[in-house]
Amino acid sequence: MSSLSPQEIVQKMMDHDAFSQWLGVHVLSVSAGECSIEMTVREEMVNGFRVAHGGITYSLADSALAFASNSRGRHALSIETAVSHTSPVSPGDHLVATARELQCGQRLARYEVTVQRNQKTVALFKGTVFKNDTPWT
Amino acid sequence: MSSLSPQEIVQKMMDHDAFSQWLGVHVLSVSAGECSIEMTVREEMVNGFRVAHGGITYSLADSALAFASNSRGRHALSIETAVSHTSPVSPGDHLVATARELQCGQRLARYEVTVQRNQKTVALFKGTVFKNDTPWT
Amino acid sequence: MSSLSPQEIVQKMMDHDAFSQWLGVHVLSVSAGECSIEMTVREEMVNGFRVAHGGITYSLADSALAFASNSRGRHALSIETAVSHTSPVSPGDHLVATARELQCGQRLARYEVTVQRNQKTVALFKGTVFKNDTPWT
Amino acid sequence: MSSLSPQEIVQKMMDHDAFSQWLGVHVLSVSAGECSIEMTVREEMVNGFRVAHGGITYSLADSALAFASNSRGRHALSIETAVSHTSPVSPGDHLVATARELQCGQRLARYEVTVQRNQKTVALFKGTVFKNDTPWT
Repeated sequence: MSSLSPQEIVQKMMDHDAFSQWLGVHVLSVSAGECSIEMTVREEMVNGFRVAHGGITYSLADSALAFASNSRGRHALSIETAVSHTSPVSPGDHLVATARELQCGQRLARYEVTVQRNQKTVALFKGTVFKNDTPWT
Repeated sequence: MSSLSPQEIVQKMMDHDAFSQWLGVHVLSVSAGECSIEMTVREEMVNGFRVAHGGITYSLADSALAFASNSRGRHALSIETAVSHTSPVSPGDHLVATARELQCGQRLARYEVTVQRNQKTVALFKGTVFKNDTPWT
Repeated sequence: MSSLSPQEIVQKMMDHDAFSQWLGVHVLSVSAGECSIEMTVREEMVNGFRVAHGGITYSLADSALAFASNSRGRHALSIETAVSHTSPVSPGDHLVATARELQCGQRLARYEVTVQRNQKTVALFKGTVFKNDTPWT
Repeated sequence: MSSLSPQEIVQKMMDHDAFSQWLGVHVLSVSAGECSIEMTVREEMVNGFRVAHGGITYSLADSALAFASNSRGRHALSIETAVSHTSPVSPGDHLVATARELQCGQRLARYEVTVQRNQKTVALFKGTVFKNDTPWT
């Protein structure tokens, strides 16, 4: 098993995660299998409709998935993810993504990530990860 | 119907799509319901494993979806998307995303986007869009 | 709006739903946007591994989706569904599927359906429906 | 590796697959990683709208996935599947499901299954399987 705590694993991941840094991701809370992170949407994140590009909310949710699943102690890689965009997001919006573990097996685990703005859901994300034998150290 | 050609619609979208510009997206080809775009992965796009963040390939595929579906002439919004990451992507990798229309109805349409590096698939993406009555002008 | 209550709509659907009847589906509870149903797996429902065919749990969850979404009063058609099979199911197992509304818009709505055996989750299902203007009468 | 040919594996699976038998599935062709099967929709397969229950086309596609993935020689279990219903299906309709391998790794593989009636697509299915070390013998 990992010699690191869930918080230490996520901190180590964030330190090398250049894209989450570009997004402005800030970790709110971490526990084994769970994670909550936040960011604020910027002008450079919009698409051709001048709302946040779908890739922005996806990326935030995918970071939450990575942190929540790796916090269990072994390296976990996302293999299948799906996202529903339920409400448009604009520059200036403050987003919170919360990952919850739905199922945790030996090799596979499933997570649900909800992305909210002012407690209103803007995206629903579901991800499956594959865990190999490499511990976080 | 739209007074713009598929190529003019995509050009107009790209002009306002700040995030696709940040990604370095370049349009290779457009026709009604189809689109092919490219980009090169940069160091600032990696995650905590130092490979491309899942959000990067997702975003590229999502832009291809947006361009292909809107090129039909009416505003189309992504409602459901799913992506499978099948091979890791690294800084310096040149990616090509190709969107193909699977089904085109009055309100809903489905697209498949394949993301490749040197003709090898690195991600498989599927998206459903909802088309409203607003034409591209 | 519909002149029928959520319970009356689901009863009317069940009366014509020959396949849910073949499955042995029994409605446990209905309210606007929510539904809980049950069934027991039979020998004729197994696959080549002699566990329940993936189509059985999918079908149960899809019926729960149909009942929950139509109970809102207008005809709703499933457009996108996804299911994760998280634990094998065997003949004799008693399954309960519970549909919960994640988001309810004018045209589109999203639901999550959890399928459980003895309160343990065996499948996670997510569905998106398209609502047309036809009321249930 | 398996001592059985792809055709022998699928025959062995079909022999025990009571639900595919109930559906009336007939195998059209099998090769390593690919499979094509057919069935005809019956009155007892309809839902509350008197069209084929979504579980019917899902089940047909899921059988095609199981046959195509197991034909590679090792036991493969479906872990994530998604289906888009693109056109309603009625009793009497003859359906053909064709599974194509999108990616084949050591542990995971992805397949696309297209369900057609008279060469017109009625459902698009995507599935991911996990392969364990048990060979088909």
